[in-house]
Amino acid sequence: MSTEVLVQILLMLFVVFVLARLASTIFNRFGVPGLIGEILIGIVIANLVIGDWSLMDSLGLTEGSFNLELMEVLAELGVIFLLFSVGLETRVKHLTSVGRAAILVAVLGVLVPFILGYAFILYWDGNVQHAMFMGAAMVATSVGITARVIKDMKLTDTKEARIIVGAAVIDDILGMIILAIVAGMAESGGDISIASVASIAIMAVVFVLVILLFCAKCVPKINEYMEKRKAARLEADPNCKVYSVNKLALAIAVCLGLAMLSQWIGLAAIIGAFLAGMIFADHAWEWDLEHKVESLNVFLVSFFFVNVGLKVDIGSITGQVLLLAVIIIILAIISKYIGCSLGAKFGDKELDKDSTNIIGIGMIPRGEVGIIVASIGLSYGAITGDLYTVVVLMSVVTTLIAPLFLSRAFRKKYTPEYCVTADDKI
Amino acid sequence: MSTEVLVQILLMLFVVFVLARLASTIFNRFGVPGLIGEILIGIVIANLVIGDWSLMDSLGLTEGSFNLELMEVLAELGVIFLLFSVGLETRVKHLTSVGRAAILVAVLGVLVPFILGYAFILYWDGNVQHAMFMGAAMVATSVGITARVIKDMKLTDTKEARIIVGAAVIDDILGMIILAIVAGMAESGGDISIASVASIAIMAVVFVLVILLFCAKCVPKINEYMEKRKAARLEADPNCKVYSVNKLALAIAVCLGLAMLSQWIGLAAIIGAFLAGMIFADHAWEWDLEHKVESLNVFLVSFFFVNVGLKVDIGSITGQVLLLAVIIIILAIISKYIGCSLGAKFGDKELDKDSTNIIGIGMIPRGEVGIIVASIGLSYGAITGDLYTVVVLMSVVTTLIAPLFLSRAFRKKYTPEYCVTADDKI
Repeated sequence: MSTEVLVQILLMLFVVFVLARLASTIFNRFGVPGLIGEILIGIVIANLVIGDWSLMDSLGLTEGSFNLELMEVLAELGVIFLLFSVGLETRVKHLTSVGRAAILVAVLGVLVPFILGYAFILYWDGNVQHAMFMGAAMVATSVGITARVIKDMKLTDTKEARIIVGAAVIDDILGMIILAIVAGMAESGGDISIASVASIAIMAVVFVLVILLFCAKCVPKINEYMEKRKAARLEADPNCKVYSVNKLALAIAVCLGLAMLSQWIGLAAIIGAFLAGMIFADHAWEWDLEHKVESLNVFLVSFFFVNVGLKVDIGSITGQVLLLAVIIIILAIISKYIGCSLGAKFGDKELDKDSTNIIGIGMIPRGEVGIIVASIGLSYGAITGDLYTVVVLMSVVTTLIAPLFLSRAFRKKYTPEYCVTADDKI
Repeated sequence: MSTEVLVQILLMLFVVFVLARLASTIFNRFGVPGLIGEILIGIVIANLVIGDWSLMDSLGLTEGSFNLELMEVLAELGVIFLLFSVGLETRVKHLTSVGRAAILVAVLGVLVPFILGYAFILYWDGNVQHAMFMGAAMVATSVGITARVIKDMKLTDTKEARIIVGAAVIDDILGMIILAIVAGMAESGGDISIASVASIAIMAVVFVLVILLFCAKCVPKINEYMEKRKAARLEADPNCKVYSVNKLALAIAVCLGLAMLSQWIGLAAIIGAFLAGMIFADHAWEWDLEHKVESLNVFLVSFFFVNVGLKVDIGSITGQVLLLAVIIIILAIISKYIGCSLGAKFGDKELDKDSTNIIGIGMIPRGEVGIIVASIGLSYGAITGDLYTVVVLMSVVTTLIAPLFLSRAFRKKYTPEYCVTADDKI
């Protein structure tokens, strides 16, 4: 690798990283999720052209260049580790204990947006694949943003907060299964016969269930065996050397392996990464895995969101695209609100109107998950650049407005000491 | 990025990472530094050919492929963060307090190997650039390996240990300056007029000194100012929101920036990374930077050492190369031993023969630093593949034998409770 090439690569990494982190920090400071700043930086980099000069070219990110491919790989690794860390927070045993309300909120909160998104796009342009991906992109709730608001307001112990977080976890898993089915269909060339959908759905569900079962049944047993063996060796010889593998390396290996496997069988790499996170979820705290993976994320995740922005071509946004975006945003908000507040109402008769209102609003933000679904659709050629832009706008807007309404809804029911603590995580 | 390409990339990352970490863990278990296992895995991957099948090709690492270039970038990032973490452990204020003995040990331990290596290769093949790089590769002491032995033997508080660690730090800085000069010469096409050497040397020294001065004078003042400002704001309004930037992101940004800058002005990227580490050294502990950067290293550094092995072509190792390797290994051991034990003897009259013996042996291992110098030489085309292989062998052998002799030398002087604690870091 020649000096010039290396300088170009390091320059690109440095500029992208610094701009992304600066934007993220500034946005955070004004209470806006940092990822929105990072996406904006990507849009600026992609669209900043002054006369003959283009920022994209200056960074070596020209069409088909090595730097652009490197950016894609770093973005992919970033989103893999991001979903891995989401998986780390998703414990199987919590899923079985969140109760009827959370389950109903999650199921209706997935079904209503999917059906509305699917039906509308099918009506709009008649393309089943477009409709499937748009439905899938409208499903996913971004736990992080709502959880942050709840944490900032110190309302983690309220019933509404527990239902929202529980539902968001189930929502993630349902969303992953839907994504697996949709991506599997795109992989097989958009084949939409009932037989093929059924076979892909079965494979996706089996893949997810096998790993969940492995989490729930085998992982604790393996751990128990290892602990017993270690204790037996120490009892036999208290001075014996007890070796252990590097926990982070083990986690990275499983994450890369399952990401590769799920991509290979035709699902998305992030599904494997998410499930890998779930495998380690019970030990994430004990092994300090969340902090360690967080360090990887600090370096890599910015590249994912900047890359999301890089694909938004402002010049191509027509009135038609904007109109579609507005409709989709409204549908995304309404469908999630109705699905989740109905789920809460039917799931727990004790919840009053203020509470179902909180839960409905709390599930609105799509954050990164909707964008990830759209990126996968774009990489398969299953959706158009216009639809991609629409999903990015939908994710950004739902993420921006939900915290505002959520804190208002919470204050209507509770009178918390509103306290913002500084935090510059994603 | 198509599914097939992504699967190929993830497969390569997964296989390389898992093999490297497995080898590293197994080698560690038998008391051998893990990096040697990782280099061996690289050699195996590069040279495992059965009939028509080659492991290298199966992983998509064919000549000129994207995967091979990606491997180079990950390796480069790995070594940048590795040197950054070495810099984190190098505090400017410690340098001024280690005393005469450590300074003399470092200076003689740098001069004697450089002169011997330079003179011998000049005699062997008459090429000044080869001679310069070999001299530079023979200079660097790998602090890590010796420090590990000392820590394992619980002898950190001995005078010898303090001198070795102090000398190793100064040795690192002198080694970086020599590398900067040698790399600068290679960059300018092997120009070896006295004027050009002088100008490169001056630029290298100025670059290093400016940053060191910045560390010593400006960083504490900036910190003091920030702390005062924060305290003043909190005093004015105890409830005001105190924001802070993500410390790891700040460190990564400075590291990438200085790495890019030093590569751009014709020095090596790792020199900038090392100096960036020194800038943060005083806060590494407070900000938990060492652990955070360690997480990045767990993921990335393996790729560097595997990549080192990938470049070793076993088929090309002739009797001539082996003979040269044996001579260089002997020279590397003798020159470091003589330089450092003489330095210790002249630097501190109170040290007896056993102590100078310990110090001489303790400085022998070259570890990663010698290999890094050779990699840079190879990337500039300033040394041949044969010389590269020789340096790799020299680094591996000195690293393997030093701990053996060092623990023996220590036990001759002290009777420590020999206690090995498991540790699976690099």
